[in-house]
Amino acid sequence: MISKKQNIENFKKLKKQEYNTDYYVSGILSGNKTILSKAITLIESNLEKHQNTAQQIIEKCLPYSGNSMRIGITGIPGVGKSTFIETFGNYITQKNRRLCVLAIDPSSEQSKGSILGDKTRMETLSTNKNAFIRPSPTSGTLGGVARRTREIIILCEAAGFDTILIETVGVGQSETLVNSMVDFFMLLMIAGAGDELQGIKRGIMEMADNIIFTKADGNNMLKSKLAKTQFESALHYFPKKESNWTPTVSLVSALENVGIEEVWQTTENYFNTIKNNNFLKNNRKEQTVKWLHETIMDKLKADFYKNKFDEIKKLEQKTINSELTPYIAVKQLFEQKI
Amino acid sequence: MISKKQNIENFKKLKKQEYNTDYYVSGILSGNKTILSKAITLIESNLEKHQNTAQQIIEKCLPYSGNSMRIGITGIPGVGKSTFIETFGNYITQKNRRLCVLAIDPSSEQSKGSILGDKTRMETLSTNKNAFIRPSPTSGTLGGVARRTREIIILCEAAGFDTILIETVGVGQSETLVNSMVDFFMLLMIAGAGDELQGIKRGIMEMADNIIFTKADGNNMLKSKLAKTQFESALHYFPKKESNWTPTVSLVSALENVGIEEVWQTTENYFNTIKNNNFLKNNRKEQTVKWLHETIMDKLKADFYKNKFDEIKKLEQKTINSELTPYIAVKQLFEQKI
Repeated sequence: MISKKQNIENFKKLKKQEYNTDYYVSGILSGNKTILSKAITLIESNLEKHQNTAQQIIEKCLPYSGNSMRIGITGIPGVGKSTFIETFGNYITQKNRRLCVLAIDPSSEQSKGSILGDKTRMETLSTNKNAFIRPSPTSGTLGGVARRTREIIILCEAAGFDTILIETVGVGQSETLVNSMVDFFMLLMIAGAGDELQGIKRGIMEMADNIIFTKADGNNMLKSKLAKTQFESALHYFPKKESNWTPTVSLVSALENVGIEEVWQTTENYFNTIKNNNFLKNNRKEQTVKWLHETIMDKLKADFYKNKFDEIKKLEQKTINSELTPYIAVKQLFEQKI
Repeated sequence: MISKKQNIENFKKLKKQEYNTDYYVSGILSGNKTILSKAITLIESNLEKHQNTAQQIIEKCLPYSGNSMRIGITGIPGVGKSTFIETFGNYITQKNRRLCVLAIDPSSEQSKGSILGDKTRMETLSTNKNAFIRPSPTSGTLGGVARRTREIIILCEAAGFDTILIETVGVGQSETLVNSMVDFFMLLMIAGAGDELQGIKRGIMEMADNIIFTKADGNNMLKSKLAKTQFESALHYFPKKESNWTPTVSLVSALENVGIEEVWQTTENYFNTIKNNNFLKNNRKEQTVKWLHETIMDKLKADFYKNKFDEIKKLEQKTINSELTPYIAVKQLFEQKI
């Protein structure tokens, strides 16, 4: 591996040749946010030449990746995610960490807007030199978005970001995806009148390593304290996590800048725990292997369904109508036509 | 459709010709448990001629299937599943229901023994003329066992069984499979000292429609009542189920024959609810379509992995070592060799 200083020099030399892989790689490795941003745009592009360059960049960055805390963060709209991320983000950059904020937002395609929108959503963080905010890609399937996000993580890590926050909305399948690419999962909620989970899909609770009640200030304080107690008691009835970590409950007021330090301490405790018990390493290994097999299956499926779409739709109807069992349907599908 | 009486007559005529599909079908439709049992043996056989006959039988039984309550039941060993099923089973046959007990036991292959073992485990139920107990198939992958169980359900329903209990151990992936083929899911537990969930895997709690504390008698009574209150309160923090059903908590003593009637009433309430809100119908449709797509994917995967096993293993290692991204690995896999 070459030094950062050398990368900066290489980068200067290569500056003029765009679409040159080394130009991007040395830019990224020297920590240049503009080049990182351009490389991410290549990853998000559907043009074949962009994809080819992107894949070469990723491959060269791969050996420099892996050294970050990968943190997922979810919560329904209105819970105060942006405010939390801004406060939390500014706090940890003061601790000399370099933060990258990404988003997975499967709904953005329909709404034509990203949940991260423009950077005005996190005004001070977006001008923080140790932070990098990247709005959600606005096109592609959930699987495609996931693949790209995983690749973007590699580039951000290669660019020296040691904390990656991946944000999503707590209403769909995107949490499972985010969970499959992070080490730590934060769930943001507002303490309410007994119905805290409205809008939070089943299964998300069980993913959470830290449940954070936001807006725990003013009139909300008492309710929040009560919710904390209730959740701590309820979490007791949840089965133990593979990481051996018992999910924690935190109260935070971004407004009054209260509780942020505790969340950071919890995060550090968590990472110490999973480093020591090897969960971090083993989990990432598992995530990678799973990602490989998913990619294989996606490719197999895409190729097959493209050719057989009409036949499969007909067989769906026949199985629903109890004319065929799926077993016989599939036998027919493969024997007749392939 | 022909009448049951006619089926009995057809069956008598065909009695001598084994491996004749109509022999089995008329036997099953006339409610003959011996023939049903033999047909299930064909489903479980790995011989091609048996499979062919089995598939023909299933196809002919398919139009007569679907009219049962499909109930999943799980709990760790020692929770008292057999005793509960025996008591519950005898109770509902008195209500003129016909009960079929099946099992999914992925561990049985290793242990060379089925969780249902021989029928002595449910002595009175096994001699009950309105009950049919089928031990778990002892070979095959989890996917294979699942497929066979789904097919066995079809035959049992065609044989006039209106209540199907599918039993499994609460420790593995088999619950998810069972959940994908039933309408209602019971989770059996014993009230303990705060650690009720030991051994119950994450996610199983969220599947449960009815949590049943067994052995709620004698010295256990107080603890059980407390557990009921605690769980009812904890379930409040679980997200709402798609069926719109709020999971219930029951106390049962099979020994003292207490609480069984309440469980049955809960079951009836549940089925009334999901019939009225169409969840029963929609969920089964979804289960069938999912089953079809799973079968397609299983076939695609099996064919592909058989040919590419070694290459894939090598690529696994390369992605773990950060030499390749899964995307590039799969690209190489498909471009070079196919």
